[in-house]
Amino acid sequence: MSTTRYKITLEYNGQGYAGWQRQPNALSVQQVVEEAIGGFSNQDVSICAAGRTDAGVHARGQVFHVDLEPFSKPMDEFAVLKAINAYLRRHPVAIIDVQTIDEEFHARFSATNKLYAYRVINRPGDPAIESGSCCHIGKTLNIEAMREGAKHLLGHHNFSTFRASECQAKSPMRTLDRLDITEHPYDTCGGKEIIIEAEARSFLHHQIRNIVGTLSLVGHEKWHPKDVKTALEAKNRSAGGPTAPAEGLCLVRVDY
Amino acid sequence: MSTTRYKITLEYNGQGYAGWQRQPNALSVQQVVEEAIGGFSNQDVSICAAGRTDAGVHARGQVFHVDLEPFSKPMDEFAVLKAINAYLRRHPVAIIDVQTIDEEFHARFSATNKLYAYRVINRPGDPAIESGSCCHIGKTLNIEAMREGAKHLLGHHNFSTFRASECQAKSPMRTLDRLDITEHPYDTCGGKEIIIEAEARSFLHHQIRNIVGTLSLVGHEKWHPKDVKTALEAKNRSAGGPTAPAEGLCLVRVDY
Repeated sequence: MSTTRYKITLEYNGQGYAGWQRQPNALSVQQVVEEAIGGFSNQDVSICAAGRTDAGVHARGQVFHVDLEPFSKPMDEFAVLKAINAYLRRHPVAIIDVQTIDEEFHARFSATNKLYAYRVINRPGDPAIESGSCCHIGKTLNIEAMREGAKHLLGHHNFSTFRASECQAKSPMRTLDRLDITEHPYDTCGGKEIIIEAEARSFLHHQIRNIVGTLSLVGHEKWHPKDVKTALEAKNRSAGGPTAPAEGLCLVRVDY
Repeated sequence: MSTTRYKITLEYNGQGYAGWQRQPNALSVQQVVEEAIGGFSNQDVSICAAGRTDAGVHARGQVFHVDLEPFSKPMDEFAVLKAINAYLRRHPVAIIDVQTIDEEFHARFSATNKLYAYRVINRPGDPAIESGSCCHIGKTLNIEAMREGAKHLLGHHNFSTFRASECQAKSPMRTLDRLDITEHPYDTCGGKEIIIEAEARSFLHHQIRNIVGTLSLVGHEKWHPKDVKTALEAKNRSAGGPTAPAEGLCLVRVDY
């Protein structure tokens, strides 16, 4: 029986999940979604995502593909979206787009670009409304210095300094196409929201969180902006800053 | 012993609270804040807010005043902010500004304007990341029609149609100074965020939620924009639309 390939975009709150990838002893987003699709279709499903996200990391535009056999009654793309969401109702996971697509499409290998955003709430008081979807830094950061430091990371480099020891990529070489830091008013008392946006075709494990942790040292004026260049050139994780918390990170968009 | 009056601004997530106002058998934001201030100061405290918010309604800029006796050791405003927040750590409630102020200031009676924002996520898929701080409407709303309907509510009117039966205000007359509806991209798949901003010196109980519920009928094209005028002129709650859910509403700012 011939199957149809679907390209599906979803949003999730990563709190409470062991990350995207299915694991034997912990609940993953992948498992929740596979069970929801299995639930409405009565098929054994295995889905393939554009990229894994770590435990606690969010997504506004994760993409996966799945091959499904014909349903017992015909369903258009919108009906498939609603059917999966009905099974996801108890989870902070929601399908936001469903498209049928030709079988050459592969959610991981066809991706040409990914946009991640790291959100920092920069003010003395903790974030109360969005506590799980941002990182809190109480002391005012020097954004201009962070931008200076970020410039050294743009382009094609050996990113070993920003790579988790458990990273499974064959090569530490990556091309960072964009690393922008923008500041926005967050409340009416001077609090700021700082958004660090990173774009690349692919990233190393923990690469963005390690970059953000390093740039936060520059923001705290413990490091000079040019220390980021020195750290990069050391090609050694121990030369970099700490890993920023997972809850600030979000996979915003995957381009094909 | 002379006391000092403080003007304090705070943010809270209203989920899980019975609203702002202290109640005998349910946890309120007021109780949590009074206990936090009592905890660090060892004083019996009673606080007075700019306005009550309903159960489930959020605040980004609620304001209250409190009179405190001198502390055992001198503390500046920033130290007071940090001390209260240390006691609030287990709650989604955070002090974002503390100012000493003269005793003529009254958080409720000195307020000249309040800004509330109602957030609607308008797309087929449920909001997954911000599920508790917005209202979800799946069907695409006609924003232009909602704007047309909203115009009829601006100015000084008898708002009985939009007033909860349990409202304790002496008069149903209010002056609505602003009612703007703006639309913003929310995700990369065509989902929208609709923000309804309302400004007035004061509001009736459920006034904004009843206005939003009524405008949503216009957005769904069940009502014509001019039906909003007819409803207003009926001066009768039964002529209005439903009460929109609490979780979409947020007290953004109080002006003095």
